Amino acid sequence: MLSSEADHFVRKVRSFDQRGLARVLSMVENGHPLAPSILHSLYNPQRSSLTIGITGPPGAGKSTLTNRLISYYRRHKNRVGVIAVDPSSPFSGGALLGDRVRMQEHASDPGVFIRSAANRGHLGGLSGTTRDALEVLAAASYDPVLVETMGVGQAEVEIASLADITLLVLVPGLGDEVQTMKAGIMEIGDILVLNKADRSGIEQLEMSVNASLELIPDQADRPPVIRCSAQTGEGIAELTDAIGSCTSSGAGRKATAHRRTALLLNSIVREKGRELAQKLLLDRYGSIEETIESILEGRTTPYWIGEMLSGFHNNKRENENECKRD
Amino acid sequence: MLSSEADHFVRKVRSFDQRGLARVLSMVENGHPLAPSILHSLYNPQRSSLTIGITGPPGAGKSTLTNRLISYYRRHKNRVGVIAVDPSSPFSGGALLGDRVRMQEHASDPGVFIRSAANRGHLGGLSGTTRDALEVLAAASYDPVLVETMGVGQAEVEIASLADITLLVLVPGLGDEVQTMKAGIMEIGDILVLNKADRSGIEQLEMSVNASLELIPDQADRPPVIRCSAQTGEGIAELTDAIGSCTSSGAGRKATAHRRTALLLNSIVREKGRELAQKLLLDRYGSIEETIESILEGRTTPYWIGEMLSGFHNNKRENENECKRD
Repeated sequence: MLSSEADHFVRKVRSFDQRGLARVLSMVENGHPLAPSILHSLYNPQRSSLTIGITGPPGAGKSTLTNRLISYYRRHKNRVGVIAVDPSSPFSGGALLGDRVRMQEHASDPGVFIRSAANRGHLGGLSGTTRDALEVLAAASYDPVLVETMGVGQAEVEIASLADITLLVLVPGLGDEVQTMKAGIMEIGDILVLNKADRSGIEQLEMSVNASLELIPDQADRPPVIRCSAQTGEGIAELTDAIGSCTSSGAGRKATAHRRTALLLNSIVREKGRELAQKLLLDRYGSIEETIESILEGRTTPYWIGEMLSGFHNNKRENENECKRD
Repeated sequence: MLSSEADHFVRKVRSFDQRGLARVLSMVENGHPLAPSILHSLYNPQRSSLTIGITGPPGAGKSTLTNRLISYYRRHKNRVGVIAVDPSSPFSGGALLGDRVRMQEHASDPGVFIRSAANRGHLGGLSGTTRDALEVLAAASYDPVLVETMGVGQAEVEIASLADITLLVLVPGLGDEVQTMKAGIMEIGDILVLNKADRSGIEQLEMSVNASLELIPDQADRPPVIRCSAQTGEGIAELTDAIGSCTSSGAGRKATAHRRTALLLNSIVREKGRELAQKLLLDRYGSIEETIESILEGRTTPYWIGEMLSGFHNNKRENENECKRD
């Protein structure tokens, strides 16, 4: 599968060539024909690189926190990768750029590689691109790789599930109802970070977070809650300690090669399955538009098409005649 | 495709047999072998039945609002279907039952059919089950069908996208930051319902909602904002008017048979594609566990498997030899 051309790019990534790395990430994002070969070669199921997801509402200070974490890990001589996942929402495009410009203080540091996943890339969508970019950065010996996501959409939840550890960043000023509202979101946080701890309302936030966590029956399953101020740096040491013990404790429930592999495999199977089903549909109906027309005219139904796709596996060709409905 | 056994159930659904309908919904949820045939027969791309999604944070009063809407549509002689999608989150299980018990005042009304989608059903998951249950209720002449979802998770967003109109229910007491946080969520609301309008803070909520909406460049794209109190009934007439004009205005941007068909087809293609890819994987590796072992031992990679799945479409058998990496 590995052509000499792909091999050229693989070597670039492994030899700390930042321009080569950027090129490969673009190839991954754009669905370049060589991308699968390159990913196949770079992939290492036993990689030690830690991926840390950073998520939470806009305004929670995620970019400032990411900045702090970059500085911390740089002081400890780590090469740090950052993937900043831009929001798909047209609503929240504004505030973002300013925050990320701040991150650029690290841009001239060769030990830091920052990548913005700004578009939905090729077939796999934003989460497919981010998933693959993570593996490329790990192969380029960036450790940790920080993935900052905006908001709480579908893509964000999926990306968080691919990270080894996810920090859910919250800030004071949200009432109890909000904490309840975020119930589903809280489940994606391995560590709950209460940022802007110097603000009034931090006590109330911590109380309601703890009240929510008490609903988790097993105390050992409750994520640690860390107060910090990304702005002043207060609490960052406690946070990195918590990250460290999350990963070193065998509990490091997301950290095993097995779990990573299962998630990556699942994500790829889902993506390729969708592509495959689409191709089979197009083989039969020519285009999505013609399929929809067929359905609207009563010649077939989405459920019949579903059966046709299922039957494909068994080559149940007898299913391939359109059947009349009563 | 339609056996006489399936035909039996199809007739039950069409003849307003509530027990038969309940049976069919269970078959759909449990992936019964007859389910695809029944769904195929019942499906009508030109159905007039309107599906109204009702979503928003716990505590926003969605169940009370659903109750009000049931009463309203019953007074107008509609048969009303309700699908109450239970949360997948263990966090928010508590408050729910009480709310839904209230809905049971309608349980003895033969013109109302209430169904709780409590489990994740068969392969398609919660959103697949809900999607199919919607079509069954429409075929049973329930119009409208109300789909109440909890929280803002992935399944909820997907379900909302299948509804013709989605009401996003908000309540006073959430600050500006929360409005921003919900940016992504707001996009799923065709009508923004500010519930508990008798509470203090309603002005502030409306102001921040409107401020968020101003970010939508085209004024015509901004969803209407309706104040109401599900508790007292105040504003419900305005809400049902808004629902009416959303559907009657050609703008009724989600309401066309074309759009419904495209969404249903997309959802089924995604679901069947995933199933198909999983079967192909198992054909080759025996089990997910063995696949993961293969990857961990370096004999293959998820990316190579992805190529194998892609290649299946073209019967590119030359791809099927595992290739060595450099």
